Amino acid sequence: MRIESLFTPGEITESTVKGTTVAVIDVLRAGTTAAYAMSGGCERIIPVATVEAATNLAASLDKTVTLLGGEREGKRIDGFDLGNSPLEYTSDVVKKKTIILATTNGTRTISMGQGAKEILIASFVNMRTVVDYVAGLDEELLTVVCAGQDDRFALEDAVCAGMLIARLSRDNDVDLNDGAQAARLLYRQNEEAIPSLLKNCEHGRYLESLGFGKDLDVCGRVDSLRVLPIVKDGRINKAKRPRRK
Amino acid sequence: MRIESLFTPGEITESTVKGTTVAVIDVLRAGTTAAYAMSGGCERIIPVATVEAATNLAASLDKTVTLLGGEREGKRIDGFDLGNSPLEYTSDVVKKKTIILATTNGTRTISMGQGAKEILIASFVNMRTVVDYVAGLDEELLTVVCAGQDDRFALEDAVCAGMLIARLSRDNDVDLNDGAQAARLLYRQNEEAIPSLLKNCEHGRYLESLGFGKDLDVCGRVDSLRVLPIVKDGRINKAKRPRRK
Repeated sequence: MRIESLFTPGEITESTVKGTTVAVIDVLRAGTTAAYAMSGGCERIIPVATVEAATNLAASLDKTVTLLGGEREGKRIDGFDLGNSPLEYTSDVVKKKTIILATTNGTRTISMGQGAKEILIASFVNMRTVVDYVAGLDEELLTVVCAGQDDRFALEDAVCAGMLIARLSRDNDVDLNDGAQAARLLYRQNEEAIPSLLKNCEHGRYLESLGFGKDLDVCGRVDSLRVLPIVKDGRINKAKRPRRK
Repeated sequence: MRIESLFTPGEITESTVKGTTVAVIDVLRAGTTAAYAMSGGCERIIPVATVEAATNLAASLDKTVTLLGGEREGKRIDGFDLGNSPLEYTSDVVKKKTIILATTNGTRTISMGQGAKEILIASFVNMRTVVDYVAGLDEELLTVVCAGQDDRFALEDAVCAGMLIARLSRDNDVDLNDGAQAARLLYRQNEEAIPSLLKNCEHGRYLESLGFGKDLDVCGRVDSLRVLPIVKDGRINKAKRPRRK
């Protein structure tokens, strides 16, 4: 299997992802939040690019089963039910609900991945499930796309991509592009220190300054959830079971 | 000093580089070639984006002192005097000449850096000179921009950026963005093995397949040249002497 890793959505071209399996990584926090929401039993997540699109869509859906979630500059959007903290997406809040989610980097990355065969949402919390799923596929190419931060490299996403690549390369013959090699190296230098990585990376420090220190702990709980959010036709749903070869 | 590292020119925004000192890195091979040409005594290099711009410009200049150099897909452009191999840019060929240079990634990165106060061309071969020069500046911010390969991350450029950052952080208090932290980590994992890194990275393997294996050796000769190409008003000239604090 060839694995290519891209550190910013800006490195995606249509031909890069067309017909391929893509893993999108946004550790802080949309990817982790999606895993928590799925684990809490939400029905589906509809990612949208703008606040306006979110409110317009919400107006057309049944209010009793719809929640508006998302952030701008890390903070909950005015008038929204939820922010972008995984800790808000508990079962008693999200069960059987449709969540319209407007986040800055994660949503944009997902939209740039349109044309892919399948988009998996990977983060530290659901890494084992992602690895099992991908290992069960009979794919020649996996493209790992980091959401990054405002179109720039984000260390926590690169290290998470590296964990996925390191685990896949343990039991499989892999051919890596430069980005995937670098991601695996960065993971190996941080593998024993994921929680402190999340506290020290730029976006982690920013979230801490906003009072979201607890989110950093949650986002660093490797393999804590058995769930795989998958994007299909613009909707994020829970993968029923891993496809098998 | 704050150091920000960007792994692709696509991460540059106008506000990122405006008024700042920028170091552009394109190890394989434009940055190394520029250092060799300057070391060989060329008068100036004029980087251009397209083959057409190169030939139009050449037609307006004195043929006896002008050379056309550059590559597409690593190979010399038809009708050009020189390709993009540093080994071609010897003193007997380039002395007192103006070189019009059309390369794929390096030229584009330089043009995206317009608006910067000063653009330094850094590579392994002239690293000591770059570090001395930057250490002598009284700047609050250095932006290190990797040319990458076709708008994607290139490992050799990231490691070279990391060498610059590692050396600057040895004697100076530095504040690093995520990209600069990652670059330094990648350098530290490769610092004893620059030649083999250049042979194993994606673009190195491609150049080897074209018969440019010797170029890889040359591009990995750390601190072998005492020269600093600087971009000003769209021309690359040799820095006369390092500015001092």
